[in-house]
Amino acid sequence: MADVAPGAPATGGAAAPMVESRIRVRYAETDRMGVVYYANYLVWFEVGRTEWLRAHGWTYRAMEDDGLTLPVIEAQCAYRQPARYDDEVLVRTTARQVSPVRLAFDYDVVRAADEVVVATGSTVHTTLDRRGRPVRVPARVKDYIA
Amino acid sequence: MADVAPGAPATGGAAAPMVESRIRVRYAETDRMGVVYYANYLVWFEVGRTEWLRAHGWTYRAMEDDGLTLPVIEAQCAYRQPARYDDEVLVRTTARQVSPVRLAFDYDVVRAADEVVVATGSTVHTTLDRRGRPVRVPARVKDYIA
Amino acid sequence: MADVAPGAPATGGAAAPMVESRIRVRYAETDRMGVVYYANYLVWFEVGRTEWLRAHGWTYRAMEDDGLTLPVIEAQCAYRQPARYDDEVLVRTTARQVSPVRLAFDYDVVRAADEVVVATGSTVHTTLDRRGRPVRVPARVKDYIA
Amino acid sequence: MADVAPGAPATGGAAAPMVESRIRVRYAETDRMGVVYYANYLVWFEVGRTEWLRAHGWTYRAMEDDGLTLPVIEAQCAYRQPARYDDEVLVRTTARQVSPVRLAFDYDVVRAADEVVVATGSTVHTTLDRRGRPVRVPARVKDYIA
Repeated sequence: MADVAPGAPATGGAAAPMVESRIRVRYAETDRMGVVYYANYLVWFEVGRTEWLRAHGWTYRAMEDDGLTLPVIEAQCAYRQPARYDDEVLVRTTARQVSPVRLAFDYDVVRAADEVVVATGSTVHTTLDRRGRPVRVPARVKDYIA
Repeated sequence: MADVAPGAPATGGAAAPMVESRIRVRYAETDRMGVVYYANYLVWFEVGRTEWLRAHGWTYRAMEDDGLTLPVIEAQCAYRQPARYDDEVLVRTTARQVSPVRLAFDYDVVRAADEVVVATGSTVHTTLDRRGRPVRVPARVKDYIA
Repeated sequence: MADVAPGAPATGGAAAPMVESRIRVRYAETDRMGVVYYANYLVWFEVGRTEWLRAHGWTYRAMEDDGLTLPVIEAQCAYRQPARYDDEVLVRTTARQVSPVRLAFDYDVVRAADEVVVATGSTVHTTLDRRGRPVRVPARVKDYIA
Repeated sequence: MADVAPGAPATGGAAAPMVESRIRVRYAETDRMGVVYYANYLVWFEVGRTEWLRAHGWTYRAMEDDGLTLPVIEAQCAYRQPARYDDEVLVRTTARQVSPVRLAFDYDVVRAADEVVVATGSTVHTTLDRRGRPVRVPARVKDYIA
């Protein structure tokens, strides 16, 4: 489901590996306009960041079991082209740190058949501990972040 | 959102009050065929049984807080007519006991504009306590059950 | 489901009526963190703008039948407080014009019980005709826009 | 995503090939009980029958383009064990003919890690032509049906 690929050329050693997830559009995800309903892109973003973590040796489930959560505090999406039922799309995910206790993921959704960009977006997350207090982004995640 | 109405004429005193919930079809609930995607009826059934409980003086949230859950063990739906975006539908919910520890809800979904039956269905639930063990259906629910 | 209320005090006559939609959180809309899953706010935004149009004498369904569509080209949401199962939330929607052929809706989601702001967001839409070409925002909508 | 495997031992040559689809549980699919929300199994069934068709050389999208649709007229599901976030589940789909113009799919959902059966279900479909009239199940599908 996911491959790790080098991101944009790193300068000074700051690697920002991109992780790619492949998703087949479900009938359930379309609406009566015949295209993917706009809220479902945020679900795909979730798949993207889940696979990003997994590709870097951690699962979000294990992270939650370890007492760390990453609630979304902001999300945004720009819709470029419609995606349609049964299309295969690729969600390309990278991560960047936006503050000591905040992390952002960026997503490019492209149609697998022709590499057309369907949508781009991002989500911002706070790193919370078991009691719901902000904590520093863990070192094991930071190593893979721009 | 919900009204209690007498169910079918009760014989021997066994009342089975029907509770009606009104739902406006969301764009998100349609699919590319232009009608409501079939899985969403089960979401409406959830609205129906939630309102059924509320109409009888209990909320499902309070019930969970009280340590009681009603996980679904079976669900079925027969689709008669399509429902479309922006239609108002009425979910008419009744309950019946199927065993000392099991409860069923029956649902009729009708289009508000013309009373056409859109779908009918039912769900079967086990009554579980905090530890996940089956317990008897509580008295305060049984009073409203066929 | 929806009430029209005056928006912020208008200066120079530019009225921006706010329309309020009431939504009960469904179990289906929660996730394993016990709160509303973040993508579902975009579904509520859709309910908000649908009710905004209806309150101003047009339905989105009729608009589509008239050959006009409002596809989303951008969406964003800031999450302030979690909303929980069975909460009642109010989606307060206003509209503004962002270009001759583009319209934006702004949303405030507040918890009905205590008026706490749960989330805020906006969506930007292009006005398209039957052939998918951008057209001017119709006069009957413009009258209600900031 | 999908593999074709022989189904139950065929007698008299009637093969009923089973097609297996692999699905990773999304956070979006869970609810506040921490498990997959019950309506989402019907979405997985859709993935199952889509992959069943594809494995037999037809896509549902191409079928719709060819003027044939398979609207669901009945669906049912029995829930055995909860599925959880990030679990991998396998949807095993077979098909059978229930009348000249009706087709059914049967689904077993098993957890990939331990082959535990999570749920079983079925859907019944009418074969409709472009005008919405029932037509015979096409020969190219019948060849793979029990």
